[in-house]
Amino acid sequence: MLCRVGCEFVYHSESATPAVAQIFVRPDGPHVVRAERTELIPNVALAEYRDSFGNRCGRFVMPEGPVALRYDAIVEISGEQDEIVVEAPQTAVEDLPNEALLFLMPSRYCPSDRLMNVAWDLFGGTELGWPRVQAICDWVHNSVTFMHGSVGLADALEVYLQRRGVCRDFAHLAVTLCRAMNIPARYGFGYMGDIGIPPMDAAMDFHAWFEVFLGGRWYTFDCRHNTPRIGRVIIGKGRDAIDVAMLTTFGSPQLERMTVWADEVSEDTTLDA
Amino acid sequence: MLCRVGCEFVYHSESATPAVAQIFVRPDGPHVVRAERTELIPNVALAEYRDSFGNRCGRFVMPEGPVALRYDAIVEISGEQDEIVVEAPQTAVEDLPNEALLFLMPSRYCPSDRLMNVAWDLFGGTELGWPRVQAICDWVHNSVTFMHGSVGLADALEVYLQRRGVCRDFAHLAVTLCRAMNIPARYGFGYMGDIGIPPMDAAMDFHAWFEVFLGGRWYTFDCRHNTPRIGRVIIGKGRDAIDVAMLTTFGSPQLERMTVWADEVSEDTTLDA
Amino acid sequence: MLCRVGCEFVYHSESATPAVAQIFVRPDGPHVVRAERTELIPNVALAEYRDSFGNRCGRFVMPEGPVALRYDAIVEISGEQDEIVVEAPQTAVEDLPNEALLFLMPSRYCPSDRLMNVAWDLFGGTELGWPRVQAICDWVHNSVTFMHGSVGLADALEVYLQRRGVCRDFAHLAVTLCRAMNIPARYGFGYMGDIGIPPMDAAMDFHAWFEVFLGGRWYTFDCRHNTPRIGRVIIGKGRDAIDVAMLTTFGSPQLERMTVWADEVSEDTTLDA
Amino acid sequence: MLCRVGCEFVYHSESATPAVAQIFVRPDGPHVVRAERTELIPNVALAEYRDSFGNRCGRFVMPEGPVALRYDAIVEISGEQDEIVVEAPQTAVEDLPNEALLFLMPSRYCPSDRLMNVAWDLFGGTELGWPRVQAICDWVHNSVTFMHGSVGLADALEVYLQRRGVCRDFAHLAVTLCRAMNIPARYGFGYMGDIGIPPMDAAMDFHAWFEVFLGGRWYTFDCRHNTPRIGRVIIGKGRDAIDVAMLTTFGSPQLERMTVWADEVSEDTTLDA
Repeated sequence: MLCRVGCEFVYHSESATPAVAQIFVRPDGPHVVRAERTELIPNVALAEYRDSFGNRCGRFVMPEGPVALRYDAIVEISGEQDEIVVEAPQTAVEDLPNEALLFLMPSRYCPSDRLMNVAWDLFGGTELGWPRVQAICDWVHNSVTFMHGSVGLADALEVYLQRRGVCRDFAHLAVTLCRAMNIPARYGFGYMGDIGIPPMDAAMDFHAWFEVFLGGRWYTFDCRHNTPRIGRVIIGKGRDAIDVAMLTTFGSPQLERMTVWADEVSEDTTLDA
Repeated sequence: MLCRVGCEFVYHSESATPAVAQIFVRPDGPHVVRAERTELIPNVALAEYRDSFGNRCGRFVMPEGPVALRYDAIVEISGEQDEIVVEAPQTAVEDLPNEALLFLMPSRYCPSDRLMNVAWDLFGGTELGWPRVQAICDWVHNSVTFMHGSVGLADALEVYLQRRGVCRDFAHLAVTLCRAMNIPARYGFGYMGDIGIPPMDAAMDFHAWFEVFLGGRWYTFDCRHNTPRIGRVIIGKGRDAIDVAMLTTFGSPQLERMTVWADEVSEDTTLDA
Repeated sequence: MLCRVGCEFVYHSESATPAVAQIFVRPDGPHVVRAERTELIPNVALAEYRDSFGNRCGRFVMPEGPVALRYDAIVEISGEQDEIVVEAPQTAVEDLPNEALLFLMPSRYCPSDRLMNVAWDLFGGTELGWPRVQAICDWVHNSVTFMHGSVGLADALEVYLQRRGVCRDFAHLAVTLCRAMNIPARYGFGYMGDIGIPPMDAAMDFHAWFEVFLGGRWYTFDCRHNTPRIGRVIIGKGRDAIDVAMLTTFGSPQLERMTVWADEVSEDTTLDA
Repeated sequence: MLCRVGCEFVYHSESATPAVAQIFVRPDGPHVVRAERTELIPNVALAEYRDSFGNRCGRFVMPEGPVALRYDAIVEISGEQDEIVVEAPQTAVEDLPNEALLFLMPSRYCPSDRLMNVAWDLFGGTELGWPRVQAICDWVHNSVTFMHGSVGLADALEVYLQRRGVCRDFAHLAVTLCRAMNIPARYGFGYMGDIGIPPMDAAMDFHAWFEVFLGGRWYTFDCRHNTPRIGRVIIGKGRDAIDVAMLTTFGSPQLERMTVWADEVSEDTTLDA
């Protein structure tokens, strides 16, 4: 199955402004990038590097005036839904791989130390492993109301208190609750269109979900949808949205327009179509 | 100059408890480890690994009952004071090495996004580069009162509001203010004894300071002392104290005793002395 | 000078919902109520009482379905601007009247205990009394950006950190900073139209300001405008917006429309005009 | 039954410092003050007034140097335990007396607006009225660990997250949860000795509890003890500890010693005994 994903940001900047973009499809996801193209208008240089999580990052300097950053990719996706493995056991902390330990620690938006008691209150009685994560996922899905622009830069504690937010907030809260219970959890961010069934209840292009480490590997959960989906095209993974920040600017340019796409396309689609 | 550094933690645990220690001297510091020894009593296995910041981490499982972890090392230190390079210029964000960008981002204890306006209010009028960092260092040194056990797990915002804390809190606040002003800053933690002059105003063994990236390299600042010192024996560096956590336990063992040492010793000292 | 002030709230309620309105002109303000009328459609009872600050409060029960609350008043105002008395001295705490002491204490939205150090940092060097309050007023006026719907139920600490808000947020921050410096300050809320000169930079009908106790009496300050105005028609005074909450509902009715007016009218205007 | 209650505060002040004491037995409690005496050494004037909650407050100015404030009273108490009236119904908001409405609102230490969702999650399924309050009281009693000096000036949200505190923190959390569920709740503070059975698990002299309005009147609950006690000698009532602050100083005098007593005494005891 082919997917065309991408985005366009248009900014207006009062002065030259350094920026880092995290909008590029990760090469090691369950997908194959057939073609991709990154454009900056005016044509300034973009230097790509990998951060410590393996995410692709693009550095550039926005010139004074208007600037457009456009990324477009054609990606082959598997068409398989998120796996459900209810028997996946919890991995004891002592058996976790070294790299997973980082994802037990609190981070800027996921202060698992602050929500420790809350997590054990709510889920201390659930079965270890997959059922515990599913219980957390169900609870966040049912307790938090999706509401655009509602929480802003709030951390998971605010989301827990206010019970509203966007997909990023849903993911942060679930990640936080998992970590508080010694289940490694990381934030996932990418493109995701309304592909497969059931149809989504809201248009989505950029989307955030989370991954947990159970039974020796990472699994994808999505407490916004709380049902297996197809079509996650991964941009990045990290502790929280700080590590996969989409577009970070070191200055105060004005965002004038943002467009995102993630659509199923036919086999013969090219970037020039 | 030789230094003997180390620590002993004695815990009592109700049940087997996984733990990670960050108490080992980094091999790439401005020092040479002549000899070191790690002991666990009872004798359980400790597996060492490096985290993504290059810090040495030791994993082990505390058995039920009492457990002692002891680390002892003899380290050759340079005897040189922290450098002062007042002409070190600020590096423009676009010229920073990729690995430094991470240290511009907010983290759990250093929410630089929250203190952005405060930082610019206080230091927006200072000269870029070294003078700006020195101004931040002076301000934290003069505004925050050293007080044991006062702030606990508070982040830099709490330290800013309450103006008291331990060396870790001083470092967190300075790191946060630097990042808010686009100066990469990282947390440093290690052993540090009362070596050199002037004598310290308080005994110190474990100590926290911070590093900033200026003019192409990292420099050490210490807003607890706010005067160049000798004898930093580095355990770890990271975004904040979460990344260099000394001892993390996944459970609730009781800490019964902690001893730390960092003393100048004579050339012929051995670990068995 | 005559002013017609009032408001209309239209709610839709799923079930009977108790409510308290604070929308009525205080009888003891520097104004005379010539005529007023309160209507509820459907016609449910509204019982008026005075709270401990002397504010008029109207209790009623919203029936299931749509409900409209309308208040309309014709008020004679003095036409005099807010007084400026730069020589008004600070009153020593020991000389304050008993009833002013309450307004030195922190409250829900004005956590003056949290901003104590910030206040003394910023204003500790200013001249006591009127000049200190004016310095606070100037600073809030210049540092905070007016932005609709930006901060929601944030307290003055959030306003201080984020530097944006509505007139209520401006008032909360100034009140908090005054109290932190031992100057009694209270929150004022009322109707205020674009009367007098200069014209306002934004339409205003409900408005929030603050009062401080200096030299033996209360004075009005307004850090949103930061210039003397005429035409404050007082609804209530209190510790903060909790005490003058406009409309409090004990349930979750949907606010469907809110209209507010505060206009200069001619001498022969009646409520039926 | 007779009780001797009182306290002595010894301060050292660098300069004259205004202060307000709330340490005097309320005249309208379920007790009769047989004799009382207030002393200040050196002998400075203390002026008593009543705040808006009817609490007795004593204003004075601490002179430079050492100052001792001593209050001593002999009080006749009823010897009856806190009432248990499990059938006391919840009073609908519309039927509450006007004065009770204030105690539904959030306050500085009781941010019931912040804990609204938490309260309904935890107690939304309990029976209205007394059983609901008892469920809140049980939960706070069982979930929060008594720990001296642990939370400091934390509000009820911090107590909820950290689950530790002193009697004041217990009371604040319970008050907050009740208000979030539309049950008027106020903070109570007074003297309370280890009188009656069972003996207390910790010495207590000053103590904080809370009152709720059910079935037409106020009842006392105590989630620190969570069992009916005798011997509450009321100093004050209010929204939270801000309104009954024991000793408020406008300056930074050093507290050098605090002694409190609350003991059963024989019928012939006098203040001079």
